[in-house]
Amino acid sequence: MAEEAAPETPESAAAEGRVRAWAAAQRARGRRVALVTSGGTQVPLEARPVRFLENFSSGRRGAASAERLVAAGYAVCFLHRARSVFPWARALPTGGPALLDLLRVHEAGRSVRVAEGALPALVPALLAYRRAQDQEALLALEFTGLAEYLALLRAAARALAPLGSSAMFYLAAAVSDFYIPPSEMPEHKIQSTDGPLQITMKMVPKMLSPLVKEWAPEAFVISFKLETNPDILIEKSRRALEKYRHQVVIANLLESRRTSVIVVTRDLETRLSLSEDEIAQGLEIEEKIVSHLESRHRDFIQQGSST
Amino acid sequence: MAEEAAPETPESAAAEGRVRAWAAAQRARGRRVALVTSGGTQVPLEARPVRFLENFSSGRRGAASAERLVAAGYAVCFLHRARSVFPWARALPTGGPALLDLLRVHEAGRSVRVAEGALPALVPALLAYRRAQDQEALLALEFTGLAEYLALLRAAARALAPLGSSAMFYLAAAVSDFYIPPSEMPEHKIQSTDGPLQITMKMVPKMLSPLVKEWAPEAFVISFKLETNPDILIEKSRRALEKYRHQVVIANLLESRRTSVIVVTRDLETRLSLSEDEIAQGLEIEEKIVSHLESRHRDFIQQGSST
Repeated sequence: MAEEAAPETPESAAAEGRVRAWAAAQRARGRRVALVTSGGTQVPLEARPVRFLENFSSGRRGAASAERLVAAGYAVCFLHRARSVFPWARALPTGGPALLDLLRVHEAGRSVRVAEGALPALVPALLAYRRAQDQEALLALEFTGLAEYLALLRAAARALAPLGSSAMFYLAAAVSDFYIPPSEMPEHKIQSTDGPLQITMKMVPKMLSPLVKEWAPEAFVISFKLETNPDILIEKSRRALEKYRHQVVIANLLESRRTSVIVVTRDLETRLSLSEDEIAQGLEIEEKIVSHLESRHRDFIQQGSST
Repeated sequence: MAEEAAPETPESAAAEGRVRAWAAAQRARGRRVALVTSGGTQVPLEARPVRFLENFSSGRRGAASAERLVAAGYAVCFLHRARSVFPWARALPTGGPALLDLLRVHEAGRSVRVAEGALPALVPALLAYRRAQDQEALLALEFTGLAEYLALLRAAARALAPLGSSAMFYLAAAVSDFYIPPSEMPEHKIQSTDGPLQITMKMVPKMLSPLVKEWAPEAFVISFKLETNPDILIEKSRRALEKYRHQVVIANLLESRRTSVIVVTRDLETRLSLSEDEIAQGLEIEEKIVSHLESRHRDFIQQGSST
């Protein structure tokens, strides 16, 4: 079923080999490995697509979490939507006039420097990025479309399976629940002269199921649940845990997602929140999430080795 | 009808005042003014939206055209999708590792410089941007959602109407043809457990009609037609010209849009293409489009003043 929605491609096969070699090297250095997925998937509505269904996601959560995981000693495979927020690049404006305004031409065009005001945030980010590069602690993989995401997720999961319980899956990407099978897609751009648009979309097979059962059955798996209705949030998170038998759901609401989440496990609900003071200090909720999960993961590894 | 789909907002009213004052100053300097729209619109599928319909557009065409128009002596109001390609910022990678890789920490963190290899492309772009800023030759306005785009387009069109035939409208944005009226939108995130997704979308009222008839009836108006099917491209362009009574349609196909377009007017079809040599030299099709339109616009102004 998963194979049908996302057949293996030469790119995904190459990615599997790359991740496998990288993970083995990281393991040899004694590092735990995390796969972080980040950003939204793109679902085409036409065979030669002009229109797409997109899920809301800047990729900020995934990028911030990847930074924290590297700081906590993890090697991170960062499977992200092309052009979504990237770890440590958050210190820079994303294109546009803000980025141009930051750059100054010096020495009659022989050098371009970043404006001094930006250095306090930028220099530590650049140094942390360079350090991660030097240690190969960040392996970035890019996707755009849903099928590409699914194929890369499977490839990376299989490549990390040999690490057993020391692999963490941190599935923060906003994956579409719906898609149009290629056989049902119009070949050309849908014409607006044909009147109102009727779209029927099929459900995307949930990847959590094969991930937990087949691809990486010993791994520590965290999924995310984003809702707008607080009344169904916890119930839906519990139902996901029961159905997929993974370890953790991070439950959050669209409006408060940057300051508060609930960590749901089979026997516990733990709320993590930023205080007013912490928000004023520029602390990010991802710092608390990663710190919490890091110790949960440690317990998980020990439980596994003691049985 | 247009007012219904895109009611005036405090932001659009403020933008109208800003564009009006800026345009008057540009006119006093003897500059022609162009409104360039660029990038795709976002259409929410839910009232508290998690999912969106997006039109394909990086904003590259609009940004490249704005650069050329400024070089040709126009003052450009650049109405663009937030985070889409921005004039002169194309010389830089858009975020992510490529941007981080370009920056070097020097003097123990007291300066950050752009890598030398990037300077040949970056320095001229930065100088052109700075020159445009100094002359206020670029006024940037941002949109994300469809309603926001429509309200800003109307505001800018009204603000430029006093310029008469010396105002050019270069409507390169990829505007959604479809939307869901707020009254028909689900309040919360659509649940995937409810089965396959059925979406019915209404047609967006075409803004070209009120733009040409009411908002800026004397202006020189160029619209864009992007299709995937070559068989209907010219016919659809002609039909648009007859229906909306504006001056030019730039017709292009998704696959060849970067190297070839057809300029369609009531009595002519002119194909503009890049030769293999020109492509190898890094020439852009927007250079030919703007050069062609600039002289058409000149004729249009003279015809108007001679009648």
